[in-house]
Amino acid sequence: MKCLFITLEGIEGCGKSTQLRLLREHLAARGFDVITTREPGGTPAAEAVRAILLDPAHKALSSTAEALLYAAARAQHVDELIAPALEAGKIVLSDRFADSTTAYQGAGRAVFMETIQALHSIATRGTWPDLTIILDLPAAEGLKRAAAGGAPDRIEQEPLAFHERVREEFLRIARAEPDRITVVDASRPVEAVSREIREIVDKRVGLR
Amino acid sequence: MKCLFITLEGIEGCGKSTQLRLLREHLAARGFDVITTREPGGTPAAEAVRAILLDPAHKALSSTAEALLYAAARAQHVDELIAPALEAGKIVLSDRFADSTTAYQGAGRAVFMETIQALHSIATRGTWPDLTIILDLPAAEGLKRAAAGGAPDRIEQEPLAFHERVREEFLRIARAEPDRITVVDASRPVEAVSREIREIVDKRVGLR
Repeated sequence: MKCLFITLEGIEGCGKSTQLRLLREHLAARGFDVITTREPGGTPAAEAVRAILLDPAHKALSSTAEALLYAAARAQHVDELIAPALEAGKIVLSDRFADSTTAYQGAGRAVFMETIQALHSIATRGTWPDLTIILDLPAAEGLKRAAAGGAPDRIEQEPLAFHERVREEFLRIARAEPDRITVVDASRPVEAVSREIREIVDKRVGLR
Repeated sequence: MKCLFITLEGIEGCGKSTQLRLLREHLAARGFDVITTREPGGTPAAEAVRAILLDPAHKALSSTAEALLYAAARAQHVDELIAPALEAGKIVLSDRFADSTTAYQGAGRAVFMETIQALHSIATRGTWPDLTIILDLPAAEGLKRAAAGGAPDRIEQEPLAFHERVREEFLRIARAEPDRITVVDASRPVEAVSREIREIVDKRVGLR
C-alpha cells in the first residue's frame, strides 16, 4: 500500500493546477494508483459550497461564515473522498487543503487561529497531508498570472495586501513544519518547478 | 430599547412558521419593531447554504459536514442580520436557531456534543436567544403534518426514530435551561398554542 496524501498549496496564480496535473501524470506513469482532487470541492456537495464561496455576489459573507464553509466543504471532502481513497491504498493529490484555510482565513481574514485550529480538528478528524508542497512566488506576480485566467472570483478580488499576508502565512507554516512541507520557488518556468516537485515526491514514494 | 432575541424550536410539523407569524402580528400591533427570520437561512448566502442542506440530492452529506454547514449559515445569519438588528433595538423572532443543531446534529446524527458546543461558540460568538419556545408534539404526529406540506426535504426524509431522538433532545435542553426555554404543547389547536405563546412573550416584553 503506497497510500499517501499530498497537497499543493500557494497563493492565486502560483501554478498549482498545472503542477498537480504534471505530478499525476508522473506518478500514474510509474504505476501508482493516483487520484487528484481540489478544495474547496472534490465532491458534489462540497462543489456546491465552493460555488457559494467563490461567487462575487456574496460580498457580505462574514469571515467566520467563510471559515465555517471551507471547513464544511473539507469535512465532506475528507469523509466522502480522501479518507476512503487513502484506506483503499491510493495516492491522493489535492489542489489546496487545510493550510489554505490557515493562510487565507487565519492570516488573510484575521479569524482567530484558535478557531482555525478547532475547525481543522472538526473537519479533518486527523486526515492530514503526509507531504505538502507550497508553490511560492510574489503575490503581485501571482495575481497578474491569475488575472490572465479570466474574471476574478470573490477571493481573487481581494487587494494585494491580503494576498501578501496569505503568502507570508504559507511561508510561516512551512518553517513551522519542515518535515511535512517543502517550499518550491514557483517563479521559475513550469518544467523547472515540475522537476523539483517530482524529485521531492519520488523520495517520499521510494522511487529514488 | 426592547431588543430581545426570541427563537421558536421544535420538530418537523410542530407549527413554528404559523406561530411565528401570529407572534409577529401580535408584537407589531403593540408597536414593537419586530423582524422575523429563519434558520438555516435569513440572508442570501445563508439561504444558499440552506438549499444545499435541504436538497434530497445530497444524500452523501456527512454528519460533520452537515453540522459545519448549519454553523456556517448561522454565523452569516448572526453577523449580517441578527446582531445588527438587536443592536438597533429590534425584537428578532427566529424560526429555529442553535438548539436545532444540538437536537438534529447532536442527538439526531450523534455528532459529538463537544463538537456541537464548539460550533455554537464559533458561529454565535455570544449572540444567544433571550427566550426560546419549544413547540412539542409526538414525532409521528409532526411528520404527518409535515407530509401534508408537500415533498419531504432531506431532513424530513429521515426515519421516525431520528425525529424521536430530536424531540427528546429538545425536551432535555428545555429541562437544562428552564430560565430561557419554555415547552408549549403544540398538539392543541393553533389558537390555544398561540395564546400561550403570547402570554409567555408578553411577560418578557413587559406587557403584563
